[in-house]
Amino acid sequence: MASQVKNVGILAMEIYFPPTCVQQEALEVHDGVSKGKYTIGLGQDCMAFCTDVEDIISMSLTAVSSLLEKYNVDPKQIGRLEVGSETVLDKSKAIKTFLMQIFEEHGNTDIEGVDSTNACYGGTAALFNCVNWVESSSWDGRYGLVICTDSAVYAEGPARPTGGAASIAMLVGPDAPIVFESKLRGSHMAHAYDFYKPNLASEYPVVDGKLSQSCYLMSVDACYKHYCNKYEKFEGKQFSVDDAEYIVFHSPYNKLVQKSFARLMYNDFLRNARSINEDAKEKLSPFSNLSIDESYQSRDLEKVSQQVAKPLYDKKVQPTTLIPKQIGNTYTASLYSAFASLIHNKQSELTGKRIIMFSYGSGLAATMFSFRLNEGQHPFSLSNIAAVMNVADKLESRHELMEHRYGAKDFVTSNDTSLLAPGTYYLTEVDSSYRRFYAKKTCK
Amino acid sequence: MASQVKNVGILAMEIYFPPTCVQQEALEVHDGVSKGKYTIGLGQDCMAFCTDVEDIISMSLTAVSSLLEKYNVDPKQIGRLEVGSETVLDKSKAIKTFLMQIFEEHGNTDIEGVDSTNACYGGTAALFNCVNWVESSSWDGRYGLVICTDSAVYAEGPARPTGGAASIAMLVGPDAPIVFESKLRGSHMAHAYDFYKPNLASEYPVVDGKLSQSCYLMSVDACYKHYCNKYEKFEGKQFSVDDAEYIVFHSPYNKLVQKSFARLMYNDFLRNARSINEDAKEKLSPFSNLSIDESYQSRDLEKVSQQVAKPLYDKKVQPTTLIPKQIGNTYTASLYSAFASLIHNKQSELTGKRIIMFSYGSGLAATMFSFRLNEGQHPFSLSNIAAVMNVADKLESRHELMEHRYGAKDFVTSNDTSLLAPGTYYLTEVDSSYRRFYAKKTCK
Repeated sequence: MASQVKNVGILAMEIYFPPTCVQQEALEVHDGVSKGKYTIGLGQDCMAFCTDVEDIISMSLTAVSSLLEKYNVDPKQIGRLEVGSETVLDKSKAIKTFLMQIFEEHGNTDIEGVDSTNACYGGTAALFNCVNWVESSSWDGRYGLVICTDSAVYAEGPARPTGGAASIAMLVGPDAPIVFESKLRGSHMAHAYDFYKPNLASEYPVVDGKLSQSCYLMSVDACYKHYCNKYEKFEGKQFSVDDAEYIVFHSPYNKLVQKSFARLMYNDFLRNARSINEDAKEKLSPFSNLSIDESYQSRDLEKVSQQVAKPLYDKKVQPTTLIPKQIGNTYTASLYSAFASLIHNKQSELTGKRIIMFSYGSGLAATMFSFRLNEGQHPFSLSNIAAVMNVADKLESRHELMEHRYGAKDFVTSNDTSLLAPGTYYLTEVDSSYRRFYAKKTCK
Repeated sequence: MASQVKNVGILAMEIYFPPTCVQQEALEVHDGVSKGKYTIGLGQDCMAFCTDVEDIISMSLTAVSSLLEKYNVDPKQIGRLEVGSETVLDKSKAIKTFLMQIFEEHGNTDIEGVDSTNACYGGTAALFNCVNWVESSSWDGRYGLVICTDSAVYAEGPARPTGGAASIAMLVGPDAPIVFESKLRGSHMAHAYDFYKPNLASEYPVVDGKLSQSCYLMSVDACYKHYCNKYEKFEGKQFSVDDAEYIVFHSPYNKLVQKSFARLMYNDFLRNARSINEDAKEKLSPFSNLSIDESYQSRDLEKVSQQVAKPLYDKKVQPTTLIPKQIGNTYTASLYSAFASLIHNKQSELTGKRIIMFSYGSGLAATMFSFRLNEGQHPFSLSNIAAVMNVADKLESRHELMEHRYGAKDFVTSNDTSLLAPGTYYLTEVDSSYRRFYAKKTCK
């Protein structure tokens, strides 16, 4: 069976984020920081968060239920279900088991897969696992379903504006409009303490911001190197950013995405690749002999490479930035919310194009991989995915407020679902044994 | 490439458990319970645990390092590394990233895979993922490596004697002595609060012992039903326990394994399968019209089915029980420590045999699957796996004591490695930022 399946990839997507958010401009005023620190310094516009009636489980119930409904997929047709998340509400019970409630109702409990965990990388791990399953001899002909769900919340201080919340559901199978180029893949995995969550009772991570940024950029370099090597091995020619129509990055904040793309251009410069024109070559030539460490430290290189990269950034990266700038860092969902932005913006124009994806999770785990896109067939088509996700409407119909609990038990939520759309799942109660109960908002 | 690989499965195994343990007889005295409560009631002999110098990370470092060394595998030849565990020391950073230290030294960071989590099922999920990778188009020809690592610790009370600790490492690739029968697999996944860890600051789970046992037995039934259906679909004949030489269960305590095998026999009886002789048929006939719920409640059925199952239990299950009885419940490693017992006991006699495996994780996730074994080629042979694991010596050279910390920071361990064998990794320090440091005991 393994040899019969072709074009395995993503057939359908749905994105859910809370209807509640805070403007970064308002947060600048609230935090008493200089104007522009979050909007220009980090490049962020707005940040989504969960009120007391939503959490990562309710968001994922909403995304899964909506995907099945809107693409008319029978819950019995799901043979694998897996979740990527780094928001831990229980240290043993998988988020996937909560989602089983949707499938148990339909008599389907024969569904493989659990949760994949490593910071923001878990969603990519789950997606790879699902694709591999479809290509393996254990595939039973049904669809796979991958959920990325996270709520990012930080302690007061410089990282606070880099929160966010969202769930993304992706249906996986053969003959997909979004096809994995599985041979072209470069990973970089290492032991690092850049961002971690060792204080188990706290919702907040321990973050070394500077180290985390350099781990991220070093991973961009290492993965790009592996990716280029594999491309050259299988395609017999040199790869440059010109060979990808769009490049999608894990997006904790937009400024890092700008830096990362500039870093790819610097790599292309060092490799003497065709994406670098004479003008760029001249501007970057003062940096041709930096050691690798110096290159991460040099503010001048950062500035010049971003200048040089600007025209290609606007073309190849900017169309991927809408949702991450509007909802914030959504950890495992971040890369796929950037990808969703691209589908929202470009829809069927993406047919025939290669998209490069860069996934990063602190700790650390990183992979660069690529998709080849085609229009697909309704309902599994790029234009229908854009229509179902309906990003513009979702972004427009948001409100502002903030309340929050973590790791608590024995409480009933406000049950205030006035801001939630019909069909949205919400948390009603956490009982004295920490058991969590959810309901679905049925009507207005 | 996917179509070229054959006989994908487990090439090599290593097991590590702490040299420190407590006899269940001694625990009965200490806890002031009736004699035989743990040894006969639970069917357990002994329980392994970590002192302050060992934890799930050090144990997995030890198992991986030992496997690579003893089977002479170059760390550069590993292309995927994944971990199953439910012992959370960090809510974001994967255990896999700690293991990367071994590979970074050799310049290999292009290694896919992260951690898989759902209670005791995570190891099976990791193993399936690894096998699927080898069969997928993204396989790059290198080996996969799967680690199951856990330390089970319970609050005072009836569950305390069901603790344990171990790490198991398994090398995955084609042409293996332990081959997956990937078409024959039945899963049962559902939402349950039988055992979970919602109190994030506590090392102890919340356990509903009675519910957990019935969830386990219901999962045995559901998975066996799916497995039999798939067998009949692909093999065109009825399956019974006679079609498997040995049956290996996830083993939180031995008594549950006895009950589970009896449950399979009861299923065979209801299905009128050939494993049930006339005598057994007669003894079980009073129970032929029980509803499914009644069948879980009936003490008489439990007793009679265990009597009926006894001869086949001794033949097909007892050889798998040594290590779980001696080291206790090792969560994700439990099923594979039972399988390791079988290899230890039967070695090359297993050639040509089918082994049924039943994996269970609370919350819940369960799968029944099977292996077909062959002797393999040195160093990846059944006899060499038994020699490397060296179970008898490891069990014999143990000591008794107990100390313990969890979720603490800013301390130096005793660094007392007197009880550890050379080559064992141990925890030296957790600094004020919760960063964990390990060292390898180099000589006596």
